[in-house]
Amino acid sequence: MTREQLLDRYTATRQLSLDLCRPLRPEDFRIQSMPDVSPPWWNLGHTTWFFAKNVLEPWGLYRAEDARLEYVLNSYYETLGPRIRRDHRGLVTRPTTEEIFCFRESVDARMAELLRTAPEEDLERLGFLIVTGIQHEQQHQELLVTEVKHILGSNVPGLREPYRADAAPPPHEAAPPLTWVPFAGGLYDFGNVEGGWCWDNEMPVHKAWLEDFALASRLVTNREYLAFMAAGGYRNPLLWLSNGWAKVRDEGWTAPLYWEKTGEGDDTWSHWTLAGDRPVDPDEPVGHVSFYEADAYARWQGVRLPTEREWEHAARLSGFPGEGANFLDSGALHPRPASPHAGLQQMGGDLWEWTTSHYEPYPGYRPFEGPLMEYNGKFMDNVRILRGGSAATPANHIRPGYRNFWAADTRFQLTGIRLAR
Amino acid sequence: MTREQLLDRYTATRQLSLDLCRPLRPEDFRIQSMPDVSPPWWNLGHTTWFFAKNVLEPWGLYRAEDARLEYVLNSYYETLGPRIRRDHRGLVTRPTTEEIFCFRESVDARMAELLRTAPEEDLERLGFLIVTGIQHEQQHQELLVTEVKHILGSNVPGLREPYRADAAPPPHEAAPPLTWVPFAGGLYDFGNVEGGWCWDNEMPVHKAWLEDFALASRLVTNREYLAFMAAGGYRNPLLWLSNGWAKVRDEGWTAPLYWEKTGEGDDTWSHWTLAGDRPVDPDEPVGHVSFYEADAYARWQGVRLPTEREWEHAARLSGFPGEGANFLDSGALHPRPASPHAGLQQMGGDLWEWTTSHYEPYPGYRPFEGPLMEYNGKFMDNVRILRGGSAATPANHIRPGYRNFWAADTRFQLTGIRLAR
Amino acid sequence: MTREQLLDRYTATRQLSLDLCRPLRPEDFRIQSMPDVSPPWWNLGHTTWFFAKNVLEPWGLYRAEDARLEYVLNSYYETLGPRIRRDHRGLVTRPTTEEIFCFRESVDARMAELLRTAPEEDLERLGFLIVTGIQHEQQHQELLVTEVKHILGSNVPGLREPYRADAAPPPHEAAPPLTWVPFAGGLYDFGNVEGGWCWDNEMPVHKAWLEDFALASRLVTNREYLAFMAAGGYRNPLLWLSNGWAKVRDEGWTAPLYWEKTGEGDDTWSHWTLAGDRPVDPDEPVGHVSFYEADAYARWQGVRLPTEREWEHAARLSGFPGEGANFLDSGALHPRPASPHAGLQQMGGDLWEWTTSHYEPYPGYRPFEGPLMEYNGKFMDNVRILRGGSAATPANHIRPGYRNFWAADTRFQLTGIRLAR
Amino acid sequence: MTREQLLDRYTATRQLSLDLCRPLRPEDFRIQSMPDVSPPWWNLGHTTWFFAKNVLEPWGLYRAEDARLEYVLNSYYETLGPRIRRDHRGLVTRPTTEEIFCFRESVDARMAELLRTAPEEDLERLGFLIVTGIQHEQQHQELLVTEVKHILGSNVPGLREPYRADAAPPPHEAAPPLTWVPFAGGLYDFGNVEGGWCWDNEMPVHKAWLEDFALASRLVTNREYLAFMAAGGYRNPLLWLSNGWAKVRDEGWTAPLYWEKTGEGDDTWSHWTLAGDRPVDPDEPVGHVSFYEADAYARWQGVRLPTEREWEHAARLSGFPGEGANFLDSGALHPRPASPHAGLQQMGGDLWEWTTSHYEPYPGYRPFEGPLMEYNGKFMDNVRILRGGSAATPANHIRPGYRNFWAADTRFQLTGIRLAR
Repeated sequence: MTREQLLDRYTATRQLSLDLCRPLRPEDFRIQSMPDVSPPWWNLGHTTWFFAKNVLEPWGLYRAEDARLEYVLNSYYETLGPRIRRDHRGLVTRPTTEEIFCFRESVDARMAELLRTAPEEDLERLGFLIVTGIQHEQQHQELLVTEVKHILGSNVPGLREPYRADAAPPPHEAAPPLTWVPFAGGLYDFGNVEGGWCWDNEMPVHKAWLEDFALASRLVTNREYLAFMAAGGYRNPLLWLSNGWAKVRDEGWTAPLYWEKTGEGDDTWSHWTLAGDRPVDPDEPVGHVSFYEADAYARWQGVRLPTEREWEHAARLSGFPGEGANFLDSGALHPRPASPHAGLQQMGGDLWEWTTSHYEPYPGYRPFEGPLMEYNGKFMDNVRILRGGSAATPANHIRPGYRNFWAADTRFQLTGIRLAR
Repeated sequence: MTREQLLDRYTATRQLSLDLCRPLRPEDFRIQSMPDVSPPWWNLGHTTWFFAKNVLEPWGLYRAEDARLEYVLNSYYETLGPRIRRDHRGLVTRPTTEEIFCFRESVDARMAELLRTAPEEDLERLGFLIVTGIQHEQQHQELLVTEVKHILGSNVPGLREPYRADAAPPPHEAAPPLTWVPFAGGLYDFGNVEGGWCWDNEMPVHKAWLEDFALASRLVTNREYLAFMAAGGYRNPLLWLSNGWAKVRDEGWTAPLYWEKTGEGDDTWSHWTLAGDRPVDPDEPVGHVSFYEADAYARWQGVRLPTEREWEHAARLSGFPGEGANFLDSGALHPRPASPHAGLQQMGGDLWEWTTSHYEPYPGYRPFEGPLMEYNGKFMDNVRILRGGSAATPANHIRPGYRNFWAADTRFQLTGIRLAR
Repeated sequence: MTREQLLDRYTATRQLSLDLCRPLRPEDFRIQSMPDVSPPWWNLGHTTWFFAKNVLEPWGLYRAEDARLEYVLNSYYETLGPRIRRDHRGLVTRPTTEEIFCFRESVDARMAELLRTAPEEDLERLGFLIVTGIQHEQQHQELLVTEVKHILGSNVPGLREPYRADAAPPPHEAAPPLTWVPFAGGLYDFGNVEGGWCWDNEMPVHKAWLEDFALASRLVTNREYLAFMAAGGYRNPLLWLSNGWAKVRDEGWTAPLYWEKTGEGDDTWSHWTLAGDRPVDPDEPVGHVSFYEADAYARWQGVRLPTEREWEHAARLSGFPGEGANFLDSGALHPRPASPHAGLQQMGGDLWEWTTSHYEPYPGYRPFEGPLMEYNGKFMDNVRILRGGSAATPANHIRPGYRNFWAADTRFQLTGIRLAR
Repeated sequence: MTREQLLDRYTATRQLSLDLCRPLRPEDFRIQSMPDVSPPWWNLGHTTWFFAKNVLEPWGLYRAEDARLEYVLNSYYETLGPRIRRDHRGLVTRPTTEEIFCFRESVDARMAELLRTAPEEDLERLGFLIVTGIQHEQQHQELLVTEVKHILGSNVPGLREPYRADAAPPPHEAAPPLTWVPFAGGLYDFGNVEGGWCWDNEMPVHKAWLEDFALASRLVTNREYLAFMAAGGYRNPLLWLSNGWAKVRDEGWTAPLYWEKTGEGDDTWSHWTLAGDRPVDPDEPVGHVSFYEADAYARWQGVRLPTEREWEHAARLSGFPGEGANFLDSGALHPRPASPHAGLQQMGGDLWEWTTSHYEPYPGYRPFEGPLMEYNGKFMDNVRILRGGSAATPANHIRPGYRNFWAADTRFQLTGIRLAR
């Protein structure tokens, strides 16, 4: 990329973060509605500090004002010094939101200056670091959307306000029947096969053997999930992993996150969306389910979830992400019903798809060097891989080989169910 | 009181709450820095709802907008319906601070109207309820000051900002030596002996027998407390109540709350005040100590803390609160060194004084009627009585018979040590 | 007391502890069914070590074998060195129960030898320490009975075995109606008025003023308590202290400890006793209630619990403990219905009676000297006084001025309800 | 197998469990020294109930006495009814240990009778179930050994007694240098390749692709691990997985489980073994390390742990388990130094070897049918695979394809470190 292209992409990404915050009230910037949810001020500040620390500092442009914010804006980099406890981000009132906006402006100005003036020989390293920072900020844009959803949804029922009242879904047709799309087994390549920038956890490209398998043609719908619920899915321990059943009991799960029963019938539920409280639409894909719920649903159906390599192979073969995929760019901020086309639908966007694969290093994995070595490798433990992106993922952030990962009990992300057999 | 007097007092009290919030930034209104600390928006809203519910509603002036806020603004009144969990007050972003200010205006306007138009025969009951609401709001003014201190003090060191930079103490003389003021035992009256409005927990007036006793002429100073610390007070279990020693170990207490070691010497400490971080002044009274610390200090000195009735008797005899007592009205917001006068000093204001008395009902105690029955009685369990008010207490809120109460491990209130023997 | 009298009393007390353990199986000696319940082996060892440490050691008779057990047998004496965590007493398998029995024999032999040979001038101090050790062991006899009840009762229903099948109550008449016995107020003496050995917490004798009051003629019965339960007592927050209501919700209390619903009717309950599972007898006093339950019951009746001084004054005036009082010596191990005599019944024995008084030092209180200073004083915090002894208290252990104390949520002791007004 | 062979194997296995308990004192049978450690009585009873429920009941030989014990002896089978909480197994005193021995005899007698009299056509199913029960009991024999080690080791230092004083290791030569044994990548078969009985989690046999890799010739020794400790391994967060570092901090880990510092030097440590406290022998393999410690050690060395398939392939190629492998049958109960032979040493026995592989189903996995479906599948979540068996594993229990699994922070099993690259 040229300097101009880099700056354009930098600027566009930075602007999008601000745009996403526009509907918020000052109060919404400060609250940590649960330990996993960082307040938006922190999100805006941390992504900025990522550029300050990893780009401006090596080029001598780090300032006292940046260092002053370091303690609160470092997320988890042990190499970069001590930091505020993660669950204390919602307990501080300084820096103010206004200070964070000023910090963004200051860093953006210096980044623009650096891009204009850096020596030619620095451009490759600089380009790598800036793209990494952009990818990092895109991850936080997805977090911002899902965290804002949780923050606004944590208000007491009578006082809740939607993020975007106009984000309501348009009328649509019924979801097509679920069919099975078969794939032949064999020895295939996996990882960053397409080349280009990628996270260290997508490398190296390597071979693995797949048996024959089939994927469901679309995501599981609310209608199908309601049938699981009506059949006592949440009350039958034999459908659940042992840890999952413990969660069901300890947390009292009886439905996906954000669902509320509104009447007597098995199917009269509403759920909290970024457009406010809405009736659960039976044709939409079921979202905000944990891995445990996805896995229990699959077992109830007598099938299973895919492995991450089955998913990746199928995505690659079927022209991921496909036309019209519902990413952040669509503005829907919510999954849509599948369309009645043949072949795999909804592989890209709508909802992240849980796989049975625990997050492990690929054979020959090497972490990034320097502080970025902490980015991925140290989290390869007891979490599950998700694939495909969601309605909160920027479209140009995703790839067939992209590996997202969350703890198996996570429900506040836009997560859904793709069946396999 | 006439209608005009009532309205004046109502208006002045309501205005003071707003004045106390003036130095805050928008962020400061929303944070619950620990479960015991309510965010200022809640404080402002709850005191307002107290009037709406206990005064406006019985006179038919409660509105849908008030009811809408009821769930978040009810503190602990079971008779008044369900409510948000106390430790969740810092997890919501609605109502906004602006909505709370509007709510205050709306209630104030209706209160003024009611006071102008209420039938003459309602005035006594109305007066009682309004004065109760005023006293309630005064309690929350003290909470507001101490909670703001905690909220601002919870920011990371490099980013902390004082509440009022000009609240710094002026130069002063050394604290006078501690002497003992003796009181003769006998059968005395206790409770609301002076008459006038009081909380139900100060009634009825009743007799109790006191043995001869003596009180220290002033509060324990930082200099004296530093000697206790230097002598290993926090490391000697024999000085502590069993529960207190468990706290010392579990919480790692080595000094009063807000103290930070700044150098090598035993006496080089700073502490967080509403005027910012300041060196610990050896002549000032030691504050932010728990009952356990006060009790351990007294045991180290070979003496004890007073009972609540010893304290009350001494206060009554010595012309409580005395001239120049340092209440909220002084603007100091911080305890001052004792003056070198004879007799008991600092009985009123500066710091609440821990007594050995657990909070129990007086003989013949009857709670207030209606929802106010929950105000005091249900908390008469495993807490300790404090007496005398502090630099955060409105001067016209306090009486010799006034009973404050907190759990024995509380340290975020303005609490100090009066010795007895 | 003469040497012979001291030795007789020592021997009888020591023998009783062994007799109380006779019905146990080897397994029962080792289990800590909840943190508050020490295993019987520990009880037997700790009381023995109390003599070894406080008597044998000062007279030069402490041995290496005693010191070897010190770490596990010290309860809470900071002056006597480090010790095993209280809640870990059920996690160790050494010393074996047999070793504990040998340790008892060894200490008993040395104690007998010491009593025979100690110089005359040592006898007073020796007598004091031995009587203190005897009183201490008697307290642990009561604990042993109540802990064994909990240990056996913690077995799963189909496998539970009674402690003494023959401890079942004989047929009895209906409990007499509850009447009120009035007492005139005035200035009275309290504490160890009768003289003789007593704990430090019963001293000094001091005056206090009582208003007129009345006590219920007998303990509250199961029949009366069942009416409270049927009236929704456990579901009405307005009857409870705030901390008590939190316990009701958090622990799911719906009845006294050890009660189990056995049918549809409001009054079809059984409870675990030392004679096994038995139907709840409506005429027996209700036992195994916490202070919070006792207090809520009294509030429901529109009355209150007595203060400790009201109770003591009434006990002293009515000839405590009265003939036929049901102490450990009766062998019943369970409270009995009140008899139809006039005046106060059941003041001594049957069940400890909760008072509203928090445990505080009497005016002029001085702890015992030496290690025994830790016996009582450091627990004077956030616990409530109980009076009168129970069916598990040795008859010669109790006095009108005797102060027992437990946390307000304690239910595994033999505790009941005496009303006052 | 013939009836006689089955009975012989059954009888030998059952006898071994009793033999393993012979050194215990009555107290040792009852204690649950931490939630993961079941008391030996439970182990003996549960393995017996497994036969009663899965074999005797389908053949009509289940009795009321068996059913009476079901609630306490069911481990985690939801299909088999409710059961005592796992962490409450150490809180009950019934059934007594003697009752458990009687229960064993009763079941053994009925098993022998059944084996003699069962119709010929039942033998295949019966054989499968009995072998499964034998394998199950062998797993519990390993647990018994490691749990007894923990129970005895939980006694306070001065009172600890060894399990077998004569289990001390004989003199030995120095451990040979660590070399690397290379293996060629390719497409290989995995799972129960050898055939014969196996757990459902070892099936089906399936293909997978391996890259070239090498395994360390022997386990990591104490000497090597001490160097890691001396180099600050436990203080450097960059060596650890994020969850592992949290454990290090929260639990205060500074050495393997059971290690105690005995002097000033970096290498003066003793550790608790079944032969009592012994100096750490630098030539023995390091044991009682968690996955996190194994992984951190490997990272410090610049290498990694093997995957489970690398390990299995290497084991299969190198003639697992090899002569003289140190299993339970050797009586050592402790890992031994590697011998100086060429090739892979210590693959079988000594210590279970942590792999980087999370426990996941093989492609095409089907759980056993009936209640045994709960045996393995529901635990395939957030645990790590270990391979090879240990000095506490019966020799005839293990296979190259055998999959053991534990949570990554487990340290009380006999677990060690095999490096890979």
